Amino acid sequence: MSIEQTIANMARDAKEAAKMVARLGTQEKDKALEGIAQKLLDEAATIKGENEKDLKDAREKELSEAMIDRLTVSDAVIESMAQGLRDVAKLPDPVGRVTGMWSRPNGLQVGRVRIPLGVIGMIYESRPNATIDAAGLCLKAGNAVILRGGSEAFHSNAVLAQIIQGALREAGIPEAAAQVVPVPDRAAVNVLLAQEEYLDLIIPRGGEGLIRFVAENSKIPVLKHYKGVCHVYVDKGADLGMAENVSFNAKAQRPGVCNAMETLLVHEAVAESFLPQMAKRFTEAEVELRGCPKTCDMVPEAKPATDEDWPMEYLDLILTVKVVSSMDEAMDHIGKYGSAHTEAILTSDYARARRFLREVDASVVLVNASTRFNDGGELGLGAEIGISTSKLHAYGPMGLEELTTTKFIVFGDGQVRT
Amino acid sequence: MSIEQTIANMARDAKEAAKMVARLGTQEKDKALEGIAQKLLDEAATIKGENEKDLKDAREKELSEAMIDRLTVSDAVIESMAQGLRDVAKLPDPVGRVTGMWSRPNGLQVGRVRIPLGVIGMIYESRPNATIDAAGLCLKAGNAVILRGGSEAFHSNAVLAQIIQGALREAGIPEAAAQVVPVPDRAAVNVLLAQEEYLDLIIPRGGEGLIRFVAENSKIPVLKHYKGVCHVYVDKGADLGMAENVSFNAKAQRPGVCNAMETLLVHEAVAESFLPQMAKRFTEAEVELRGCPKTCDMVPEAKPATDEDWPMEYLDLILTVKVVSSMDEAMDHIGKYGSAHTEAILTSDYARARRFLREVDASVVLVNASTRFNDGGELGLGAEIGISTSKLHAYGPMGLEELTTTKFIVFGDGQVRT
Repeated sequence: MSIEQTIANMARDAKEAAKMVARLGTQEKDKALEGIAQKLLDEAATIKGENEKDLKDAREKELSEAMIDRLTVSDAVIESMAQGLRDVAKLPDPVGRVTGMWSRPNGLQVGRVRIPLGVIGMIYESRPNATIDAAGLCLKAGNAVILRGGSEAFHSNAVLAQIIQGALREAGIPEAAAQVVPVPDRAAVNVLLAQEEYLDLIIPRGGEGLIRFVAENSKIPVLKHYKGVCHVYVDKGADLGMAENVSFNAKAQRPGVCNAMETLLVHEAVAESFLPQMAKRFTEAEVELRGCPKTCDMVPEAKPATDEDWPMEYLDLILTVKVVSSMDEAMDHIGKYGSAHTEAILTSDYARARRFLREVDASVVLVNASTRFNDGGELGLGAEIGISTSKLHAYGPMGLEELTTTKFIVFGDGQVRT
Repeated sequence: MSIEQTIANMARDAKEAAKMVARLGTQEKDKALEGIAQKLLDEAATIKGENEKDLKDAREKELSEAMIDRLTVSDAVIESMAQGLRDVAKLPDPVGRVTGMWSRPNGLQVGRVRIPLGVIGMIYESRPNATIDAAGLCLKAGNAVILRGGSEAFHSNAVLAQIIQGALREAGIPEAAAQVVPVPDRAAVNVLLAQEEYLDLIIPRGGEGLIRFVAENSKIPVLKHYKGVCHVYVDKGADLGMAENVSFNAKAQRPGVCNAMETLLVHEAVAESFLPQMAKRFTEAEVELRGCPKTCDMVPEAKPATDEDWPMEYLDLILTVKVVSSMDEAMDHIGKYGSAHTEAILTSDYARARRFLREVDASVVLVNASTRFNDGGELGLGAEIGISTSKLHAYGPMGLEELTTTKFIVFGDGQVRT
């Protein structure tokens, strides 16, 4: 069968399965999630065996140690996948939740009720855990899902798909509710992105290249973020001890992720008392500093930043630093170079905290807290399937609720329109 | 200046203006809406003079009477546009509304707050009132808007744009917050649909041809519905008097709109007692009936329906009628031919009412009420900028809230991630 035919069949089957999944009760879904979790643990040896094939290929292709690390499915990874499913099972079911109900003068009762989106396509890179995480969240929200992981994780994803589908079968749920694209060929992605008749949403996760490719080629709506160029602004009058801890955490706790800080903005009134000590701490942690001229004057460790630096998402131990003469200058800088992802202010001023929260356009805006909190779990959504930096449907971390929509329900007694 | 340059400049200016509009307080926005309303009334003579130019062209091009009627801006139309703006001014402002706030174990307070989408592009046909309605709703929701009406309303829309911008100027709001594309050329639409750097959303309103063109050519997210193939299902045991009134209203009260019924489904247990009388009422109102074989047996006025009839949106005094042997058959028919727009059941059975509400996939599902209630005003949203039958962001009528999104705000005391 051609790639086109294979994917079209999967998509059609997924749409059919989605109708059934949408009607499942919470207990049925939770039981199926538990079934997958248990099967993962039971089949750990098989999973590791298949994963070993991917790891062997990866070593032959001389992929980086970081890549191989991400690709490895150890017992600990299997346990964490199973625990993740059990955590999702414990989350409240968004489907069927009535988000509002009101009466009209003619006696009609009108409400909005959460319903699943339908069929979701996930396109992601390397880490095989994503297969389990995404399947769990999509199923809990009553959706069918088609998963397309990286070709380097082909064998791992295939065995995970078998496990998921085995558990679905045992739970009386159609296997087509969660499918993995069985074609390593990249052409499969293009074919998947053209199934607008069957798919309702595409969520890509991975590097900017993958995400741009998906966004540019999809006929299906896409929820995505390209990158996180996140700023921390240290206001005049900020608690400088707090500012130092938060800035350090935002940059150095895990520099390779999208919610890590890339640029530190410091009000000139506190720059001299704040920056040298802050720079020392960064330098000790091997963070390379690239500064504006004023920063370089105050911080001997800093190299001059170039125009190419300010819009950069380093995802590395590199930080740009700029001294600003006002909060307006800081917000202008954020408006120009930010990616609408995560922006934080350190301040002790009530009015400026309020203004920053109101005026900064980003999916998550924080006062006196680390940018690293832009995460569905950390913000209390329970789990996260991705982050959106475009405003339609979802802006910020996407949890179970963002995998649903609402429809209107109307209770009448024979009302007609006049 | 080229069309490309003109539109690109408008889009860039709109994005700049959007930042300012997003920060306006409710009173400032409401005052601006009142300013536009007053200016419409003050300049009625000028508006009618410009509208006359469009009407003259329309007569020369021999457009239909219905088209000319839609195009005409009478005193009554001007008063209704002004009243519409005043009604929007009275609606609650969605911007700044906190939709939820909760605490995390580490003491972070996390909330979601409504913010404007940014810049909205409206693409619509003939009726010049849409220019005022759309501008009013977009401004109230804190967005900038670029309006592109039909070329046949070119002069009318141009003078309405002058009035809007004059009122904005007097209110101290940038004129770029509401602009009308000053190019009648259809190429302008393609250029507008490519401004993904500046526009956040496109809403097309008009015939299916226009909407498909926009959906297929837009690089910007589109909220739309193609058509409304709406069904009324009369269940066994339904109150047949109520069923007759609701069905008649759904079809005949205003047949040319998207929420009018196109197909009547009748349970076989009530078909003989219901259909002949119902058919008589439709026939008296000059509704042409096209039925399944069983319907034709019971209703001499009905012509046989063909396979082409069931998916049709007639927007006219034509109705297809089908006798079904069960509610499942009715729901299967709706699943196959419906357009996810509006579906109604007439029933007196509690369990079947619940099942229909739960299982039918449409933006508005009604029990014992006319499909004609799928309308933002009728459902209590205050006003409506369109209807969406795709599930992302909005499903059903879109009011002020659907012209906004939410961002996360986080209040901390120095929290870092561990």
